[in-house]
Amino acid sequence: MKRIKMAHGGGGRLSQELLEQVIIPILGPEDGVMHDAALITMCGQHLAFSTDSYVVRPIRFPGGDIGELAVTGSVNDLAMAGASPVALSLALIIEEGFEIEYLVQILESISKTSKTIGVNVITGDTKVVERGCGDGLYINTTAIGHIAHNLKIGPRAVCPGDAVLVSGDLGRHGLAVLSARAKLGLRSTLKSDVACLLPPVEALLAAGLEIHCLRDLTRGGLLSACDEIARGGPCTMRLTEDLIPVHPSVKAASEILGIDPLAMANEGRMLVICPERQAELALSILRTYRAEAARIGTVGPRPMHSSLDERYPVSLLTALGVNHPVILSNGEDAPRIC
Amino acid sequence: MKRIKMAHGGGGRLSQELLEQVIIPILGPEDGVMHDAALITMCGQHLAFSTDSYVVRPIRFPGGDIGELAVTGSVNDLAMAGASPVALSLALIIEEGFEIEYLVQILESISKTSKTIGVNVITGDTKVVERGCGDGLYINTTAIGHIAHNLKIGPRAVCPGDAVLVSGDLGRHGLAVLSARAKLGLRSTLKSDVACLLPPVEALLAAGLEIHCLRDLTRGGLLSACDEIARGGPCTMRLTEDLIPVHPSVKAASEILGIDPLAMANEGRMLVICPERQAELALSILRTYRAEAARIGTVGPRPMHSSLDERYPVSLLTALGVNHPVILSNGEDAPRIC
Repeated sequence: MKRIKMAHGGGGRLSQELLEQVIIPILGPEDGVMHDAALITMCGQHLAFSTDSYVVRPIRFPGGDIGELAVTGSVNDLAMAGASPVALSLALIIEEGFEIEYLVQILESISKTSKTIGVNVITGDTKVVERGCGDGLYINTTAIGHIAHNLKIGPRAVCPGDAVLVSGDLGRHGLAVLSARAKLGLRSTLKSDVACLLPPVEALLAAGLEIHCLRDLTRGGLLSACDEIARGGPCTMRLTEDLIPVHPSVKAASEILGIDPLAMANEGRMLVICPERQAELALSILRTYRAEAARIGTVGPRPMHSSLDERYPVSLLTALGVNHPVILSNGEDAPRIC
Repeated sequence: MKRIKMAHGGGGRLSQELLEQVIIPILGPEDGVMHDAALITMCGQHLAFSTDSYVVRPIRFPGGDIGELAVTGSVNDLAMAGASPVALSLALIIEEGFEIEYLVQILESISKTSKTIGVNVITGDTKVVERGCGDGLYINTTAIGHIAHNLKIGPRAVCPGDAVLVSGDLGRHGLAVLSARAKLGLRSTLKSDVACLLPPVEALLAAGLEIHCLRDLTRGGLLSACDEIARGGPCTMRLTEDLIPVHPSVKAASEILGIDPLAMANEGRMLVICPERQAELALSILRTYRAEAARIGTVGPRPMHSSLDERYPVSLLTALGVNHPVILSNGEDAPRIC
């Protein structure tokens, strides 16, 4: 590693390496286990805190835009800790020459999305960079949330035997953005799944389920999320390809573009890991939000030291009945998807 | 206003217009009064929340770098609400091709600065954009702070007769960055003032002073900060040019570059507005941190409707004894200074 490559931002193996070898050794956390939102305890209150920059290209895509993405993305990160949003910050980096009318549309999208979710943008910042030093508009949103439950939600809470569920069909966001970029003419059917995950999370918590881990399936998609959780556990994870919901239009676009929909970003889908005995109830709740929600696998035991399982803790049982270790791609397939 | 200009990010009149005419009408706040940090009350606790992106060019400048700037800048915004930092988020937008060794140096600077201040970066994000869609490295930091005092610190608390103080000499940061960029060869004497303002603010609060307003003098410098506070008050403000501390090397560089040091960004200087009767004590405290701290003016009454004072609420008594209304420049003098 000498210079930053596009794949360092792709959510795959190179993103993982940049985090593990460069960022975490300098800034922490000391245990090296990352989760979507960080937790703070302050005067007896439990807060969640999460930041994301959005550099999606194009900034308007089938089914959404960078403004909607920036609000739902950061709120979803809070939701993955079971937290409700309290406040959002918004920071814009605008390229010189960007049309103000276009900026207004994005700000209106931010306003509409945050009103729908019920959170306010309460502080902000605007920077301008010269033509050729940006790409229209980059947005950072940072969210503070409040945690009312007493669960420990995160990779460390995952146990062998737990059920692995997804909240809907996969790959729509990444494929919709890439298709729009490649001008495949598939726009009418393929739309981003960008959506707020707070309602299903609140429903799972309200039902008293013992959620072990939640993860929204953004950059790097399902496979990257499973790999990260398994390494954080540490545990293994066995997924069954046939059980993973992927819409035919996503499959078609994936084949044309030559990419794996299971490694593709989603912006309104999550992984839910819970005890086996609660899997049916959890699934029935998820299905009230998306009919395609499915149980896709099971958590296995901690891998033995120096085993293949330790190197590749997630495996995928394919339609041919072969159990493949999941080897993450380096992440260059889908740059600037979020 | 049809397209974004560099001056929209310069902290002058165009920045103000973008905020007042485009951003605030869509996203609020409803009262239109902006302050460095937003306040949240949660379960009886008072929190401050502030975000800033840093796009300074060059990313290493005499006296500091973008990493140190990103940590102190956001902590200073909290300090301006009298808040102590609880946690920081860090989001990087890196241009493809950026040297990892250089990234390591910036991350180490972030780590060192945050350790010195006593706050941790607890959550982060990394995005990569193509060559030509960034400029090396842009950083966003967002800070959460805790407020322990009961004062209302902000433009609305400012009263006629209040004393206006600055915590040190002005113009160093902006001039150091511009000089480095223009390769004026002034580097040996002119260094950025980048510094954490938390210790002097804590000392002012610990002395029981009734602070009415604090404002760090970043983009747009002293004049822009005074203008914004006066409009927010609403009140007028009379400054005396001779009393405003500016170092001879800053004056020299300003003359060469043809810019006003009073409209130049500082990254370790603040305005303190307090009751007249406490001005001496406040000044003596500020002087234990910077000998150049000075009283530079007085708050005047609310301007009459449709008066010149309403259009230009800040005035500057020059060395010639003339009282000039302060008319903000549009902000194009000093692009990407922070």
